Amino acid sequence: MIVSDSVAVSPEVVLRAVEIAGTPCYLYDEGEIARKCDRMLSLPRAFGLGVRYAMKANPSMAILQLLTDRGLDLDVSSLNEARRARLAGVSYDRMMLTSQEVPYGSDRNDLEHMMLEGLKYNVCSLRQLRLVSPFCSRRKIPLSIRVHPGEGSGESSATDTGSDYSSFGVHMTDLDIALELALESDIALDTVHVHVGSGGDPEVWLGTLEKMLSLLEDSFPCAHTLNMGGGFPVARMPGESMVDMEELGSRTRDSLLDFHRRTGRRLRLEVEPGTFLVAGAGYLLTRVSDLKSTGPDGYRFVLVDGGMECNVRPQLYGSRHPFSIVSSQGRLVWNERGEGESHSRTVPQVVAGRCCETGDCHGLGRDGNLVPRVMPEPRVGDYLVVGGTGAYCSSMAPFNYNSFLQAPELLLRPDGAIVLVRKRQSLLQLVGNELPYRSGVPRQELNEAAAMCL
Amino acid sequence: MIVSDSVAVSPEVVLRAVEIAGTPCYLYDEGEIARKCDRMLSLPRAFGLGVRYAMKANPSMAILQLLTDRGLDLDVSSLNEARRARLAGVSYDRMMLTSQEVPYGSDRNDLEHMMLEGLKYNVCSLRQLRLVSPFCSRRKIPLSIRVHPGEGSGESSATDTGSDYSSFGVHMTDLDIALELALESDIALDTVHVHVGSGGDPEVWLGTLEKMLSLLEDSFPCAHTLNMGGGFPVARMPGESMVDMEELGSRTRDSLLDFHRRTGRRLRLEVEPGTFLVAGAGYLLTRVSDLKSTGPDGYRFVLVDGGMECNVRPQLYGSRHPFSIVSSQGRLVWNERGEGESHSRTVPQVVAGRCCETGDCHGLGRDGNLVPRVMPEPRVGDYLVVGGTGAYCSSMAPFNYNSFLQAPELLLRPDGAIVLVRKRQSLLQLVGNELPYRSGVPRQELNEAAAMCL
Repeated sequence: MIVSDSVAVSPEVVLRAVEIAGTPCYLYDEGEIARKCDRMLSLPRAFGLGVRYAMKANPSMAILQLLTDRGLDLDVSSLNEARRARLAGVSYDRMMLTSQEVPYGSDRNDLEHMMLEGLKYNVCSLRQLRLVSPFCSRRKIPLSIRVHPGEGSGESSATDTGSDYSSFGVHMTDLDIALELALESDIALDTVHVHVGSGGDPEVWLGTLEKMLSLLEDSFPCAHTLNMGGGFPVARMPGESMVDMEELGSRTRDSLLDFHRRTGRRLRLEVEPGTFLVAGAGYLLTRVSDLKSTGPDGYRFVLVDGGMECNVRPQLYGSRHPFSIVSSQGRLVWNERGEGESHSRTVPQVVAGRCCETGDCHGLGRDGNLVPRVMPEPRVGDYLVVGGTGAYCSSMAPFNYNSFLQAPELLLRPDGAIVLVRKRQSLLQLVGNELPYRSGVPRQELNEAAAMCL
Repeated sequence: MIVSDSVAVSPEVVLRAVEIAGTPCYLYDEGEIARKCDRMLSLPRAFGLGVRYAMKANPSMAILQLLTDRGLDLDVSSLNEARRARLAGVSYDRMMLTSQEVPYGSDRNDLEHMMLEGLKYNVCSLRQLRLVSPFCSRRKIPLSIRVHPGEGSGESSATDTGSDYSSFGVHMTDLDIALELALESDIALDTVHVHVGSGGDPEVWLGTLEKMLSLLEDSFPCAHTLNMGGGFPVARMPGESMVDMEELGSRTRDSLLDFHRRTGRRLRLEVEPGTFLVAGAGYLLTRVSDLKSTGPDGYRFVLVDGGMECNVRPQLYGSRHPFSIVSSQGRLVWNERGEGESHSRTVPQVVAGRCCETGDCHGLGRDGNLVPRVMPEPRVGDYLVVGGTGAYCSSMAPFNYNSFLQAPELLLRPDGAIVLVRKRQSLLQLVGNELPYRSGVPRQELNEAAAMCL
């Protein structure tokens, strides 16, 4: 375990970013993402290493293009993710689909089309296997199978994908049925996939690796690839620890070399990082709009214009993210490392969002209670930057709650340029799919209202 | 407290609804909403009663039109909610804005325009009061003030808006400053607003009422309206209790009559229900796509095609919602009351969604652990209906997580007709605001991809 490598964005960049997009907005540091890609791609390997980006972490077109240009393939979680990646210019043969969805109707046809174009299908249940077997048998398309290892780890039970309370994959107790099915249909299961959990214990990961290698030896004589999934913890806050990927990589290599010595088989390894690649490169830029308190015995609140509708991780997981405060003139007032030019004393404060919901706070414990952060009091108009927000922030934000609009996204290029990669949603887009409940709605009146208030 | 009045939708309606919109979709029962409106509007009152619908609960145009046609006004939580309601045809003089936002820039102008058109502004902080004072003083526009009572109740700390860990309103300890400010600026504070919390204890509500009446007597001689906010608990599951609104209404009336006898003042009462009006009228219609288990010692899972991306309340609050199972042929297999024609034995099962996230389950405890539900095992293709999903489901859903599309919404009219009131989001809408990160993106190629996969 090594300690947080969280980086900080410069005040000058913050100022330029909000000038382009306003607040709230997300800013992603391309250089940091590229460094993480290169670290992943240069991990120790025995007989080949494939890195698939778990695109649900952040599926914006620019991020997908950036990562795939860099040599990464994709882990897609739904047919729509596959379609979306294709729209970003990624070919299907660079994707593996691992999904809880069981396609039916026209989705079945789409899946078959994608498989013909090279998409790898990772069957996650007996039913999925039964449904695609006839087609894959006829077309001689080999499949991957996701195995439920029966144990796992994760930051919380909500992100632990390995234990019995996770429904992902074909459980070990069903594996014989799956193998028989594949045999009957003459389908090659050339890849075995497992996912231990998100943010968990590397020892559990290595234990699962050994378990999977035994399984490959006993039950998957034709498999040439082992996909160990993702779930590599990152440290967002100073003092938090994160997995030492290089250490994990070299121990994994040793296991694969052992396996080769024992069986003569040269297994390719795949991993599926999401958070690891993009979390630390993302910043949510918000503006301080108000300062309040609930009396001398209460809390001090810093209100910002982007809360749970931009980052719901505190509410869902009790996640903590590093803050920094940048003045409206572009000076670093304070950051989580204690840097900055503030000379005012630090006091416990709660950073709250703008939704009409008490829990809309950036500092929440797993029990839902407030966790104040000790920092100097910002001024109204200062920017409060929330770090570690590159993964599972924009992608799973309930962004229209309280009728706020999906926030824009920016990319900080290595040459210092800042480019807009997602425009702010408009109010007309927000209501674009709505229909009046009664026939004969006064359209004229609505149009006038629209002209006036937009 | 009386017991759940949750209603159930008929299998025939489920079948027609999914024929129109597919799954997942939300279905709202207009008759049930109308009944709740009428109940609210006919509550006992002393000197007038105004009911403002808390539109953040469900801000779809059809719902807004339905409720305002019925005579309700609106509680809006953001400028966008006001704009959105205006687009639905509601005039600003039927809205009160209670917001954590502090408008600046062009938003300030918009707010002033709205106030001129009759929007009631409920100042929630000293800063808000200071900002609007010059304008309101010049235009002689009276204001409402939200008071932080210093105590509250709620289903969870996340929805308790009254305690010191809530940042809503002007705290009692700041009230003197606010009153002085209003006096200096010659601004009439004609409405006092307080919100005790969501889903809490009616005794706390009544206690806060008395506290507010003392406050009105001592400090707000010109106030003619007391707005007690919303937060009336509803029972979604059989056996859960809900507030007896009529009882609460008559005790509140008595207090206001007492106040009149004591002071000679005739106070108008306003309330702001959201959940109470629409929660029980909403159904999330999903389709069973798979059945899995994690072995004899594990769990049985029912996978459906709409989980946390359609209803994130279980993940955020540990909320439970009633289920019913309707066969693909339209028979009622089972519902939470034990009705239905299923003859198979009931077993504990966990209903899981389709997001690649372990916590994507409809049955979660507040600790994030699975809470299986005892019910017969459905068949793949059956419809699993999630009741009590008319409030804070579509409005705060992280609907694009895993690149799923915002689900459509339907209204069941009193005459039995089903009308589409929100179309399903399209994939092109999902990516419509995205921009490539590099100049010279192969647009041609993207267009071909779009043509192929959409």
